[in-house]
Amino acid sequence: MSTPKVQSFLSTRKEQLKNHGRLLIKCQDQPGIVSELSNFLHQHNANITESNQYSSNPEGGMFYMRIEYYAEDLPLKARFMEQEFKKIAAAYSMAYRFAYGNELKRAAIYVSKELYCLNELLWEWQNGELPMDVAVVISNHEDAREMVEALGIPFHYIPANKDIRAQVEAEQIRLMHAYNIDLLVLARYMQILTPNFIDHFESRIINIHHSFLPAFIGARPYERAFERGVKLIGATSHYVTNDLDEGPIIEQDIERVDHREDVASLKKIGRQIERRVLARAVKWHLEDRIIVQGNKTVVFH
Amino acid sequence: MSTPKVQSFLSTRKEQLKNHGRLLIKCQDQPGIVSELSNFLHQHNANITESNQYSSNPEGGMFYMRIEYYAEDLPLKARFMEQEFKKIAAAYSMAYRFAYGNELKRAAIYVSKELYCLNELLWEWQNGELPMDVAVVISNHEDAREMVEALGIPFHYIPANKDIRAQVEAEQIRLMHAYNIDLLVLARYMQILTPNFIDHFESRIINIHHSFLPAFIGARPYERAFERGVKLIGATSHYVTNDLDEGPIIEQDIERVDHREDVASLKKIGRQIERRVLARAVKWHLEDRIIVQGNKTVVFH
Amino acid sequence: MSTPKVQSFLSTRKEQLKNHGRLLIKCQDQPGIVSELSNFLHQHNANITESNQYSSNPEGGMFYMRIEYYAEDLPLKARFMEQEFKKIAAAYSMAYRFAYGNELKRAAIYVSKELYCLNELLWEWQNGELPMDVAVVISNHEDAREMVEALGIPFHYIPANKDIRAQVEAEQIRLMHAYNIDLLVLARYMQILTPNFIDHFESRIINIHHSFLPAFIGARPYERAFERGVKLIGATSHYVTNDLDEGPIIEQDIERVDHREDVASLKKIGRQIERRVLARAVKWHLEDRIIVQGNKTVVFH
Amino acid sequence: MSTPKVQSFLSTRKEQLKNHGRLLIKCQDQPGIVSELSNFLHQHNANITESNQYSSNPEGGMFYMRIEYYAEDLPLKARFMEQEFKKIAAAYSMAYRFAYGNELKRAAIYVSKELYCLNELLWEWQNGELPMDVAVVISNHEDAREMVEALGIPFHYIPANKDIRAQVEAEQIRLMHAYNIDLLVLARYMQILTPNFIDHFESRIINIHHSFLPAFIGARPYERAFERGVKLIGATSHYVTNDLDEGPIIEQDIERVDHREDVASLKKIGRQIERRVLARAVKWHLEDRIIVQGNKTVVFH
Repeated sequence: MSTPKVQSFLSTRKEQLKNHGRLLIKCQDQPGIVSELSNFLHQHNANITESNQYSSNPEGGMFYMRIEYYAEDLPLKARFMEQEFKKIAAAYSMAYRFAYGNELKRAAIYVSKELYCLNELLWEWQNGELPMDVAVVISNHEDAREMVEALGIPFHYIPANKDIRAQVEAEQIRLMHAYNIDLLVLARYMQILTPNFIDHFESRIINIHHSFLPAFIGARPYERAFERGVKLIGATSHYVTNDLDEGPIIEQDIERVDHREDVASLKKIGRQIERRVLARAVKWHLEDRIIVQGNKTVVFH
Repeated sequence: MSTPKVQSFLSTRKEQLKNHGRLLIKCQDQPGIVSELSNFLHQHNANITESNQYSSNPEGGMFYMRIEYYAEDLPLKARFMEQEFKKIAAAYSMAYRFAYGNELKRAAIYVSKELYCLNELLWEWQNGELPMDVAVVISNHEDAREMVEALGIPFHYIPANKDIRAQVEAEQIRLMHAYNIDLLVLARYMQILTPNFIDHFESRIINIHHSFLPAFIGARPYERAFERGVKLIGATSHYVTNDLDEGPIIEQDIERVDHREDVASLKKIGRQIERRVLARAVKWHLEDRIIVQGNKTVVFH
Repeated sequence: MSTPKVQSFLSTRKEQLKNHGRLLIKCQDQPGIVSELSNFLHQHNANITESNQYSSNPEGGMFYMRIEYYAEDLPLKARFMEQEFKKIAAAYSMAYRFAYGNELKRAAIYVSKELYCLNELLWEWQNGELPMDVAVVISNHEDAREMVEALGIPFHYIPANKDIRAQVEAEQIRLMHAYNIDLLVLARYMQILTPNFIDHFESRIINIHHSFLPAFIGARPYERAFERGVKLIGATSHYVTNDLDEGPIIEQDIERVDHREDVASLKKIGRQIERRVLARAVKWHLEDRIIVQGNKTVVFH
Repeated sequence: MSTPKVQSFLSTRKEQLKNHGRLLIKCQDQPGIVSELSNFLHQHNANITESNQYSSNPEGGMFYMRIEYYAEDLPLKARFMEQEFKKIAAAYSMAYRFAYGNELKRAAIYVSKELYCLNELLWEWQNGELPMDVAVVISNHEDAREMVEALGIPFHYIPANKDIRAQVEAEQIRLMHAYNIDLLVLARYMQILTPNFIDHFESRIINIHHSFLPAFIGARPYERAFERGVKLIGATSHYVTNDLDEGPIIEQDIERVDHREDVASLKKIGRQIERRVLARAVKWHLEDRIIVQGNKTVVFH
């Protein structure tokens, strides 16, 4: 699909979804929240089209809710609604967030030499499955340039190694701001990120790790899976925190393997898992289906 | 686990859940429903602990909702709440149903010679997974008697064949009323039920069919799966209607098979699928997670 | 990956596998077959590296075997071995086939407007997962041309409809011979093939059907799955015979769905299943892992 | 099913399988092995009914093979065949093992308070899925006695804690010898076994661990899975070695979970996984489908 096709597709989608909004909240569980929220939306002539809630404990636990709603002329009244909502949020000490169907998140995809995860994301994006603007692709190798630029997406080659990490990350942070990035996807980007970098983008960096965490944290998981003789291999998509491979898990999946697999064939099987696990996690993030609480995620799907 | 243990377990469970209620509704989608329902519960000091909704189409489709709530002294005010709710139901032309944690559904299990589905249900029931009173087991064979009576459950042997179908069903209907049955589970009961029988228990008979419907409707599905050379076999649990194997599907599952399987081994593999598919469907029914609409089910889980 | 890269990759692979052979046999089960075959290979200094066998019934059933072997200088002696093997084959009335690692099958891929299956095949081919020469892509639409020609693969646009079927198929058969095709893959080619066409390529046409057969044979399976309210949807890859959707099944897979899915979302989920099911079936065919017997397949994997 | 039924079933099975044998071998890969083995069987009028082989590397790796064969009057000639086979084994430095359809392995099942794995094993045993003599059940609690003795199986209550471990294990070892045990199944036996005990039964103790190893080695895996927020939970069956939870893995499986699960519901879901994973591993062991090599297993199924 050529670039103008993607642009046209995204424009159409934004127009179609311009009257659709989402509200995500998180607060201490307490009586009357649902009633309050549904009254608020009803008063603004917003009709609830999808609703999910979860309470970690009805007695004193945390309450999480995601509502999708439809309202005529939503773009004209969204800011007013947000203003009005502040009173409710204050009364219940809510953390909350509004999102709108016509505001696509702007994503940066980081990649190294292995391109299959990037491929999957761009493919699903072109199929309309991933509602985002792919604003830029960053790589410490040139391999992806041709494919990325063919889609009209800016590509930045930033060589990286541990000796120049500070200046590399400074340049990356500058680019993220220049491109006004909402989401960073590490699609097999094989460089360590420092706490300084990560702190700039809390709960906005999604990584794919090539094992079912917490098994095989760290390097060479397929090699270690082979050595351990596991009968399943997996992949995990998670938000990146300063603890390596310890951030909130968004999605995991596995495939069966047997004694005949060597490391190379484990990697081939693993690629298929990584592809789909990362694509699902990114999709759910883009659709605002994920609420992070501590080191865990609530995923409403 | 002995019978007094089961009784004691069920009593404890009813006591624990006595302040828990469920409300299921179905109506034309229209603005304000969620607001109305949540206000209603809030006014009666009922706190929503789980909520699911689904709209087949926000513009003129059907709206389905299931709410679990907690209210102090619920048994004392449940009938009053139901009375009060009638106004809302009328205003929105709702079909609706209340259910309570301390009112267990009364189930009859029908079985023939193959006992593995009955076994699974009784096992999961003893484990506390299936909140029901197993009021009676009906069979056209004596095989299950010993096991059933050992659990203190009444067992009725009613021989059946097509020549005596009318009188058999008359006796069965009589027993269902005598035992005050809410749910009939056909756990591999290998007799045809007539429309007359089925009409007595609409959306209250759950069957397990030993194929992934609509493949292999009717008799001998494993033999036909073998002949067709499928690479997956499955099982389907559904509500029974007058169209054989055509009722609303509740749950399906499959396992992989390969060319080495013969009919006997397909049946062995299939047993494991049937067991778990039927147990899940019964569990969801008992927890009031299923809303039937036309020939389909909405399952909130 | 650019075309020269693919060519270079395939050349390297053929060189690496030039001493690897495969022998597939099918005959009445009888004592001594394995002994005979293993002696034969041993006498020709061929070392068995993988071996699979299956007997439908040790007493008078059919016997199937697939052997992978390695022999120094295999290309120099392969024809001699084949000549020598004729005696064994005659003695046991075997149907048999030799295949060699350095002889890639030549494939034609047929496609219409939906390109995701074609995409998957070409991707996996570029990744080295599908050892074949993609000799030509045939389509009754122009959509795939750009992508296909960018990989250096000939693309033929042959408009098709039922009024011109005879001349279309004559042209297609001519092309298949011109390109010396061993395998036809129908990657969502939405035209009926006549018995005349199919007879030219027995057990060499692989189709992907978008349901778990035998459910939803024929047109519009996703629409019918939606109407039936199934909880699983699937896809089936099979060899094409003159009975529509009734040919020998090679592979099937499914995904769970629920009441929230509409036809459009079923199709999206289904695409992922179709992609992987077709890619697996093609891979197994290319690796000579499939033996067709009657309307069923033995798949050694 | 009552005890005489089980006995009668096992007798029938032994009679049916009395002419069926299995041969498992392990040695350095080298040319001619398959030829040698198939000639040997052919010369003794033994017909191969199933055969699996695996080479870790055709150039200098290990070779593993499992053959099932059928021979008239096998019990009369089995010892002679074994004697004859010694020459082949010596020539190729094979480790090998013969097993026979009419010689059931004698199993001891160890259990503590959680009975669901024991239940599954006894159920599958009664269904004919697990060809073994259940010689004895050992427990450090009395909970299982009634169920076990009702099946006519000896039950030994041996209280256990770390202070009396040495004497407990001495008694257990004595019992294993008194009952002539071939296989120990730890069906949720919640006591540490010392190296001394384990050394007595190398590759003959099968454990079920309630996580997908190597994740959550050690105690309280469900609690730790909850804390980590994983989206899959699993179970692992493995041979017990002196490294806790580090022995050769036989089988693993998983189920999806989400944020709504608490520790109690994870345990309930986990039970279903543990049940089936353990039953499969025991079945494969009983059918001599597992070859241990180092810390890994080759499983031919």
